[in-house]
Amino acid sequence: MSAIRHALSVKREDDFAQWYQEVISAADLAEESGVRGCMVIKPWGYGIWERIQRLMDDRIKAAGVQNCYFPIFIPLANFEREASHVEGFAKEMAVVTHHRLIADGKGGLIPDPEAKLEEPLVVRPTSETIIGDAMARWIQSWRDLPLLTNQWANVVRWEMRTRMFLRTSEFLWQEGHTAHADAEDALSETHRALEMYRACAEDDLALPVIAGEKPENERFPGALETWSIEAMMQDGKALQAGTSHYLGTNFAHAAGIQYQDKEGGQQYCHTTSWGVSTRLIGGVIMTHGDDDGLRVPPRIAPHQVVILPMLREKPEDEALLAYCEELRAMIAQESTLGEPVRVLLDKTPGKAAAKRWDWVRKGAPVIIEVGGRDMEGGKVSLLRRDRLWGEGGKPAFSYPQRDEAVQSMTQLLADIQAALFNEARERRDANITRDITTMEELSAFFGEENRYPGWVEVDWSRPSGEALDKVVEQLKSLKLTIRNVPKDAGPASGTCIFTGNKAVEKIVVARAY
Amino acid sequence: MSAIRHALSVKREDDFAQWYQEVISAADLAEESGVRGCMVIKPWGYGIWERIQRLMDDRIKAAGVQNCYFPIFIPLANFEREASHVEGFAKEMAVVTHHRLIADGKGGLIPDPEAKLEEPLVVRPTSETIIGDAMARWIQSWRDLPLLTNQWANVVRWEMRTRMFLRTSEFLWQEGHTAHADAEDALSETHRALEMYRACAEDDLALPVIAGEKPENERFPGALETWSIEAMMQDGKALQAGTSHYLGTNFAHAAGIQYQDKEGGQQYCHTTSWGVSTRLIGGVIMTHGDDDGLRVPPRIAPHQVVILPMLREKPEDEALLAYCEELRAMIAQESTLGEPVRVLLDKTPGKAAAKRWDWVRKGAPVIIEVGGRDMEGGKVSLLRRDRLWGEGGKPAFSYPQRDEAVQSMTQLLADIQAALFNEARERRDANITRDITTMEELSAFFGEENRYPGWVEVDWSRPSGEALDKVVEQLKSLKLTIRNVPKDAGPASGTCIFTGNKAVEKIVVARAY
Repeated sequence: MSAIRHALSVKREDDFAQWYQEVISAADLAEESGVRGCMVIKPWGYGIWERIQRLMDDRIKAAGVQNCYFPIFIPLANFEREASHVEGFAKEMAVVTHHRLIADGKGGLIPDPEAKLEEPLVVRPTSETIIGDAMARWIQSWRDLPLLTNQWANVVRWEMRTRMFLRTSEFLWQEGHTAHADAEDALSETHRALEMYRACAEDDLALPVIAGEKPENERFPGALETWSIEAMMQDGKALQAGTSHYLGTNFAHAAGIQYQDKEGGQQYCHTTSWGVSTRLIGGVIMTHGDDDGLRVPPRIAPHQVVILPMLREKPEDEALLAYCEELRAMIAQESTLGEPVRVLLDKTPGKAAAKRWDWVRKGAPVIIEVGGRDMEGGKVSLLRRDRLWGEGGKPAFSYPQRDEAVQSMTQLLADIQAALFNEARERRDANITRDITTMEELSAFFGEENRYPGWVEVDWSRPSGEALDKVVEQLKSLKLTIRNVPKDAGPASGTCIFTGNKAVEKIVVARAY
Repeated sequence: MSAIRHALSVKREDDFAQWYQEVISAADLAEESGVRGCMVIKPWGYGIWERIQRLMDDRIKAAGVQNCYFPIFIPLANFEREASHVEGFAKEMAVVTHHRLIADGKGGLIPDPEAKLEEPLVVRPTSETIIGDAMARWIQSWRDLPLLTNQWANVVRWEMRTRMFLRTSEFLWQEGHTAHADAEDALSETHRALEMYRACAEDDLALPVIAGEKPENERFPGALETWSIEAMMQDGKALQAGTSHYLGTNFAHAAGIQYQDKEGGQQYCHTTSWGVSTRLIGGVIMTHGDDDGLRVPPRIAPHQVVILPMLREKPEDEALLAYCEELRAMIAQESTLGEPVRVLLDKTPGKAAAKRWDWVRKGAPVIIEVGGRDMEGGKVSLLRRDRLWGEGGKPAFSYPQRDEAVQSMTQLLADIQAALFNEARERRDANITRDITTMEELSAFFGEENRYPGWVEVDWSRPSGEALDKVVEQLKSLKLTIRNVPKDAGPASGTCIFTGNKAVEKIVVARAY
């Protein structure tokens, strides 16, 4: 048995939900704001989001998509127009009804009854309809197509039960919206965005994902096809980490998005939309976190290397700081994963040991401590956050020469990025069960208490309508949902475990966030 | 007389307000959204904002300020607490009162009476109070100070009369909020932010500005000092382009932002806030625009160089495109103003001449056209947007060798950046009048019809309270406001033109946006 004293008070295996909350607090990522369902994203959490934004935005721009900004307020009429929207998720929304506050005469403030809006405005839950209006203005002819837009914005969906990063009333996201001349081009964009999400999740966030099509019942309202990337959390549940929708001509009909084709005829555009949100940070936490806090993959770490001088409030501190500053400057000259290394020399007041554990909990990929003895030997004390513990329950420091530490940094950070991905992928792959062929087996598999179920991949016949509803109900009683039909799964060969009909494809079934 | 046929239908000298609207439309920067007071920022306009954000954010981070994200909704109680706020700008606000829409039974939607919020929420007009709440949680001891935070966000102020970029109900901005142990440190931050704004305006946006303190009547509600940068538009009016506030302990008292000092005593923090917004883009338009559209300073241009191949839908097009692609790749290897050159090869369909004028109106700093003859001679046709017209009312193309064009690009873009700044500074300096010493002269100066008044710098005695109110009223009758007390103005030597008392400093008086 190891004598490790972990940095968190709750272990994953003891209470995963509680552990998740503790990581958010201990890594100083975010906190409750006091405003219902809204969080404050703190510097380390927001810094991770800025990194995700930067990397995703580079990918978005490289695909020729242009960023725009659309109003936060959407007129009620846009929702009335979208009957299918209103049936869907969009009922719980923040509604603005007044444009002025006045004193109530009792020391308080009230919405001024004189300043009631003629038509209430909705705080955007998503921008399909308002961007659709713009597309209808912007598109005249086939020359204007494809029209590729994206927006980075805050959106609001009034959530009754919230969990930080995973489900909050306000969250940050990007929403791509594109218009195309035909179904083929729109579907190709749907898949480009899906593959962009897969690449960003796997290469940048080190999250192995399964990309596939959502079943009919999980489609975005108004979509003909909804595709997702699904990531496995350490409790075996699935997290939908990004979606890409092919909307056919449904939204184009509703908003009047038409173009003149080369023959002079009027055609409706085929549109798509695709988005990822701050929810991704929840996925990073539940994939890479451990019992000592978060481990941030180097590509999205605001600081990849943190240098901690062991100051003693003595005259020798000056030389130590100079030694550390030289180290910082040398590391900053290095590049890794295609960018200059992001290195911080942390000179804030506080004891070195306390600061070390702060950075362990935050999950900086590499922590370098430098004390007087290190300096004398021209060395540093280096800790890999992803391999924190060594023999005897002690932090696994190595003690390279300073120059050696600098020269190895490029490779070390790339190694950590790869190690986190590989660890997550191995765990994911080890926890997909593929030999279940009947509902009884499925039921037994997920019914067993205290087991770590993971995901199950089964054959199905792709039922539709009421037949699908029945399947969904059956799964619901086991607290399961269909995650998606993996793009990369082999062909189905057996019979559908739900209908007994000949299977046509494979689906992934799991509990989910 | 020149025979120039300008690219816009309205000239600045004929109708400046109309010209401003035409530039926004002709340069494809933004448009009305159909939602009251809210604009859609289109790709070229948003691209300029992204550049401003990137450059400003680099400066913000370099100063050790950390980005966070705070909720868009602010409880009513926060405004009730801030009596001085409520007296100020914050009355006209978007108020959320319901969290659900339901069908009204007549095919429409209404806010669900069952889903009325117990306490209405305000869409943030600014975040002092909610960030103050967070600071009160985050700050315990002197070790936590200074606390330096910033947020990039959308804010809403219900405006009755709106003008794109200058005054819209929703706009984008950054708001810095900092807490300090004492007045000295907070004031030093107030000035750091002010000088950061000055540097960004002048070096990045090529906007010459006057940095100075706002008079008492123009202070942000609750501030002890408000400082601004003011830029002169081409119609001689002033545009407040950024503000930095020293808030004393007012907000700290309201939100309970306290710290334990080194002696163990409880102290209130001294706080600051500072912000710039998408209004800056309005300033860029009215400073650098001309009768052919916008001229974007290279540092904030989304594309600094645009290459237009003169395609003829013939087999020769292929060789021409290859020649242009080589040119693009070579230019992309160059750096200017500290960054790689941003170059676009515009292959969209359309006639080359029409595309040229589109890019002229958008204001890309350098436009390069390449036709068959250029290619044969190994040349290109190069147009500087800031010096568009040559002899005989024709565009002032030069015809360098392709290699020569590539090699000169670094310097050319730096020259354009400097030329735009110098042109604006010379115009500004030529239009500040300093020899007015009486109210009669001031009145006559601004009373004259059809003159281009610019700004006036006069001596004053810094009256306060009712004496200042009287001055403000006098100026108001001339449609004038006090812009600020320039930091860099020399000492005042005469008498105050308003009070006749001994002057203590100089102020700038102007009409303003």
